[in-house]
Amino acid sequence: MDIKGFQFSAVEAAIKKPGRKDLALIFSEVPATACSVFTTNAVKAAPVLLSAKHIKKGMAQALVVNSGNANACTGEHGMLAALETSRLTAEGLGIPDELVQVSSTGVIGVQMPMDRLRTAIPGLVEGLSSGTLDEVAEAIMTTDTFPKMEARSGQAGGSSYTVAGIAKGAGMIMPNMATMLSFIITDAAVDPAFLEKSFRCAVDTSFNTITVDGDMSTNDTCLIMANAMANNPPIKPGTPEAEIFKALLHDVLLSLAKQIVKDGEGATKFVEVRVTGARNDIDAKRAALAIANSSLVKTAFFGQDANWGRIFAAVGYSGAEVDQSSLSLSFDDVIMATKGIFAGGDTEARGTEVLKKREFTVTVDLGLGSGTTTVYTSDLSHEYVSINADYRT
Amino acid sequence: MDIKGFQFSAVEAAIKKPGRKDLALIFSEVPATACSVFTTNAVKAAPVLLSAKHIKKGMAQALVVNSGNANACTGEHGMLAALETSRLTAEGLGIPDELVQVSSTGVIGVQMPMDRLRTAIPGLVEGLSSGTLDEVAEAIMTTDTFPKMEARSGQAGGSSYTVAGIAKGAGMIMPNMATMLSFIITDAAVDPAFLEKSFRCAVDTSFNTITVDGDMSTNDTCLIMANAMANNPPIKPGTPEAEIFKALLHDVLLSLAKQIVKDGEGATKFVEVRVTGARNDIDAKRAALAIANSSLVKTAFFGQDANWGRIFAAVGYSGAEVDQSSLSLSFDDVIMATKGIFAGGDTEARGTEVLKKREFTVTVDLGLGSGTTTVYTSDLSHEYVSINADYRT
Repeated sequence: MDIKGFQFSAVEAAIKKPGRKDLALIFSEVPATACSVFTTNAVKAAPVLLSAKHIKKGMAQALVVNSGNANACTGEHGMLAALETSRLTAEGLGIPDELVQVSSTGVIGVQMPMDRLRTAIPGLVEGLSSGTLDEVAEAIMTTDTFPKMEARSGQAGGSSYTVAGIAKGAGMIMPNMATMLSFIITDAAVDPAFLEKSFRCAVDTSFNTITVDGDMSTNDTCLIMANAMANNPPIKPGTPEAEIFKALLHDVLLSLAKQIVKDGEGATKFVEVRVTGARNDIDAKRAALAIANSSLVKTAFFGQDANWGRIFAAVGYSGAEVDQSSLSLSFDDVIMATKGIFAGGDTEARGTEVLKKREFTVTVDLGLGSGTTTVYTSDLSHEYVSINADYRT
Repeated sequence: MDIKGFQFSAVEAAIKKPGRKDLALIFSEVPATACSVFTTNAVKAAPVLLSAKHIKKGMAQALVVNSGNANACTGEHGMLAALETSRLTAEGLGIPDELVQVSSTGVIGVQMPMDRLRTAIPGLVEGLSSGTLDEVAEAIMTTDTFPKMEARSGQAGGSSYTVAGIAKGAGMIMPNMATMLSFIITDAAVDPAFLEKSFRCAVDTSFNTITVDGDMSTNDTCLIMANAMANNPPIKPGTPEAEIFKALLHDVLLSLAKQIVKDGEGATKFVEVRVTGARNDIDAKRAALAIANSSLVKTAFFGQDANWGRIFAAVGYSGAEVDQSSLSLSFDDVIMATKGIFAGGDTEARGTEVLKKREFTVTVDLGLGSGTTTVYTSDLSHEYVSINADYRT
């Protein structure tokens, strides 16, 4: 993968257990146009607060990110730690502090082991000559079982460019950002306002359509940096190049989002929940999220039990306008219920066959209008409970 | 327990597996003042729709209730089944149809086995001479592991009266009614408007403060019948007797509500979540419910892990106004965090000791105002997943 002008590094800073890299750096040889979407949680981690301040001018040149400690609920000390991490990284790279983005993920409420970061940062900067984006993707993992990466290439004005992204996140996943970090880099030159608009749009149609457990974290960050090293004429809105860039960006983000759901804590199923026929799109999203977040629905998926009544019950309390006599439901192409009642015949057996698959689609038609949406979710398994009961031990 | 003028019966109608009573009847020898609170789910079961119609005049004389089948998402057939159940019961008892309340709980989406109900109802009516309220409490159980009953006695105008209640419900428990049935009977004479007002208030401060899994059912019903057979002068608002009656009613309902949480599917913990210092009571309830419904918080309770950061994260996304630097948190009397940060010292070990108990209190002070609330919840265990993955098999 060739993304011009970006360098990578990842080291063991001993924040996590020995043997796992837990501190990483993405560096652009030149300042990049950048924007970020952060958690909407009212309790925000120190690095989120600092990074939001740093990115105000729409530029970034480096991202320093650690796993193993979220630096959240850590008060003034936490903010000092984020500031020092930013300053040490900036000094090592010889760039202004404000061009450094800081990101953290891991346990909440524990102070950052700054002595270890102080020791590790010089080596982190040195490692830039030889590191890869894959190593960064691995270093940001927490309960993730595999690193999440995606890349697409495009052309603009005769120059080739690449959009590449990495992500982490396996639990605490909920629209409007989850315990999720995602960093997107591209060597394309992109008009700054268009970059921000297309990035926010891509986040909405990717990360904001997935849910694992309905929890939302203190640290969520999705950052994009475009460093223009591909030397294409800047991509501007309203052009064919803009449409191509938007599509590539969406593809990269949606791929990363789906990887997160597939790696959902303890997940044994990947479920696409489609709602159609809602009074409007907002109602469609309400209904889809109620289904995707229902513990009863998700345990039924885990049990491969075609318990469609629980899905109707979730739709019923979602807040969406519902007429129970016009509801219909399918598992893949098996119609389970129409006009609010069971389809009969061998439906049960055929529906159960669908649920035995690793991936399937649940479609609910509210039969009221043209509102539609799609969200992605996983099941709720024994393993989810095990992972989260014992996370810190 | 002496509740004058009420008779009970419970039989095996073969709706559930053999050997378990699944059809029950509560009968008042005279028409009783009655009111009911039903599910707010837009998808309502047929018996809910029928009972809501029957109770419009504020009177009821009989309740017929089955477990094993919710008669929800069953369309016109389901409504015909509810109507026939009501009619057969009314005929057997020699009372008008409209004085019969019908209630169902169990699997959603399966038609009622009406042939079995037709066979069983005559025996159900005959059994009234010898049945008990305990038997009814047992017959309405689904995933419940114990029957839920409570009773209190009071005096009004020199006459003794009793308020007794039963309930069922173990999963799908969420404020604004869960998969929960509760039937309250009293032989007190109570002014009808006052009965309704005090009953709704008691439901709000009891059943609407508990949550097991955030799911809300299609069948929830809480019914009260007051038959005046204690011969007291009717209890009227603004009197000392009214205050006593309200307190008794609240006690009975809160006891039943707590019993439901203690029997929460797979529950190993009973947790009281108190929120204080909110901007207002609505914000307090938002924060408390976010904590009580968070899968991450509940799995940490199950794991006896004093992961207080997850509680702050839940408060942060609850929608309540939050200033993270003014948050504090205690497990029982162990202060875990103040001003948004960890209290330090041996707090972790002491907090963990609290979480090892079967019952404990989590108190979060938002530090912003005088809004306060208390809700009750359970943990999220392996057993919850097992029960709900395999519910129908």
